[in-house]
Amino acid sequence: MADQLRRITLASRPQGDATTEHFALETSDIPEPGAGEALVAVDHFSLDPYMRGRMDDGPSYAEPVAVGATMGAQGVGRVIASRADGLSEGDVVTGMTGWASHAVLPAEQLTKVPDGVPPTAVLGVLGMPGFTGWFGLTEIGKPKAGETLVVGAATGPVGSMVGQLAKAYGLRTVAVAGGADKCEMAREVYGFDAAVDHRAYGSVSEMRKALDEAAPDGIDIYFENVGGKTLEAVLPLMNTFGRIPVCGMVAWYDGAGDVQTTMPALWRTLLVKRMAVQGFIIADHWDRFGAFQSDVAPRVNKGEIEWREDVAKGIESAPQAFLDMLKGGNTGKQIVAV
Amino acid sequence: MADQLRRITLASRPQGDATTEHFALETSDIPEPGAGEALVAVDHFSLDPYMRGRMDDGPSYAEPVAVGATMGAQGVGRVIASRADGLSEGDVVTGMTGWASHAVLPAEQLTKVPDGVPPTAVLGVLGMPGFTGWFGLTEIGKPKAGETLVVGAATGPVGSMVGQLAKAYGLRTVAVAGGADKCEMAREVYGFDAAVDHRAYGSVSEMRKALDEAAPDGIDIYFENVGGKTLEAVLPLMNTFGRIPVCGMVAWYDGAGDVQTTMPALWRTLLVKRMAVQGFIIADHWDRFGAFQSDVAPRVNKGEIEWREDVAKGIESAPQAFLDMLKGGNTGKQIVAV
Repeated sequence: MADQLRRITLASRPQGDATTEHFALETSDIPEPGAGEALVAVDHFSLDPYMRGRMDDGPSYAEPVAVGATMGAQGVGRVIASRADGLSEGDVVTGMTGWASHAVLPAEQLTKVPDGVPPTAVLGVLGMPGFTGWFGLTEIGKPKAGETLVVGAATGPVGSMVGQLAKAYGLRTVAVAGGADKCEMAREVYGFDAAVDHRAYGSVSEMRKALDEAAPDGIDIYFENVGGKTLEAVLPLMNTFGRIPVCGMVAWYDGAGDVQTTMPALWRTLLVKRMAVQGFIIADHWDRFGAFQSDVAPRVNKGEIEWREDVAKGIESAPQAFLDMLKGGNTGKQIVAV
Repeated sequence: MADQLRRITLASRPQGDATTEHFALETSDIPEPGAGEALVAVDHFSLDPYMRGRMDDGPSYAEPVAVGATMGAQGVGRVIASRADGLSEGDVVTGMTGWASHAVLPAEQLTKVPDGVPPTAVLGVLGMPGFTGWFGLTEIGKPKAGETLVVGAATGPVGSMVGQLAKAYGLRTVAVAGGADKCEMAREVYGFDAAVDHRAYGSVSEMRKALDEAAPDGIDIYFENVGGKTLEAVLPLMNTFGRIPVCGMVAWYDGAGDVQTTMPALWRTLLVKRMAVQGFIIADHWDRFGAFQSDVAPRVNKGEIEWREDVAKGIESAPQAFLDMLKGGNTGKQIVAV
């Protein structure tokens, strides 16, 4: 336990690319828990692409992080002081601790990590990213055996969940990932039938040709978490009655870049192919979290669902690890060891 | 009965705007019905925006009309010769006659018009356009009382059905139409709560301001049959969990024109607002036609659903009437009296 609370705050809002300049490391006294609260010493917290959206002002599904405020994140740690019934020193808990070494939270916002579950699993495979993949695939993608699925960021915590579940449901699975190593990981670790390296193609049309070969019967479900070149390459390959669950667009978070597809072309595709595009935010669907755990926790325990972590060491490494993740620098679920 | 069959064929494919030069009037001998067929003298046939798509080559939901072939259309007329059981001379029937004075069709592709129904109603309010509006609104739009709906081409046969049904279901209804006369018609004849004249605004942002005033609680359902400026004006006004059934994009059929919204901006809106966009083609959903008739025919008979027709006189007037319709020149369902 450090003598001071250390936290990463939003120093300023990015205009375009986010850099380490937009973050600050601040220290303060460790607060005492009030009545009904507990003080948690954070061991690990999660870095997720959605956090990039919170750095911007303007309309979004959640309040932006205020300039000067601590960056938000789910964390896991140990209770080191409690004034709440049911929480004792030493309990391993998870909650929205933020990018911080310590957090005081009301007891009802903390959940004990079940025995036998590695604590950091609740940040990834059994937490929000895994739940996002499960919900989007099953409830919006409506997978049917024999269909073909494409997912981007396929070795990430969402994409790897989507690919492994789709494979278990009897679909042909095609990964899109950045670099030969990740493509090999997609095939060898996560069991994708094929993998397309988006970095290997200079143009949308070249990438589309590779996807066309990897998905010879067309694409029925495109699980959208990246946007950009992948989306543009995929769209004309979608089959009639195709489904696109949209939970992210990391390629476009820093700005639009070079976009070739126009609104009329997209609209025509949606109409001609009778496609369904559905945006979703997992926070709207916590009522399904129990169903997710019932389906997926046994698969994880049996080793049917693989998961990997990248651990950045030290809270001060969080901003660079976050920025690297947005560019695809991680290979597993990105977390920070405080 | 004319001595010759007259028909309008596709003379050549448009590159950009369609003009009367792309059509030809041809005559030929009137064919005899074969076994199981009937010869129909066509009284009226329908002109619909979807026909513009059939004039183009390239991927679509239906085969393009071949150059030199008769333009397709639903028609109504009288049987003048029959070699089919159950069809007799004088029967009033409907089927895919095309833009033609006569058609020979197999009996199973002809439907008798029920007694008491004006024959041309089966081309509009009780036919494909009315069904399109009913299906898209009820099955994709999922309207709830108290919500707000916007529909373009609001005095057309699809838009007027959508608006009147939505009003009956307890929604606030906002029409978008071209010109003061149509806006008045939308309010006075079809009962829209407000009407926005898209011709009155030079820019998307001005039109958006008018829509914002007409829909002070935001837009929950945008029934999309026009695309273009209306879509761009509507998108930022959509409420969280909004729905967009997409059945057409007439503003973009001749080409993209001036489009301001980018793919990334659209994708961000879909994600942030958790919206659902669903393309549909009514031909996929004939299994619901009975449910449509059960719901809507009584409303039409009681006068709860208003409908209007524009009748172009003479088959030779069809190409110009069709082109005028694409530009919004009609006020009711556009049909041709042969």
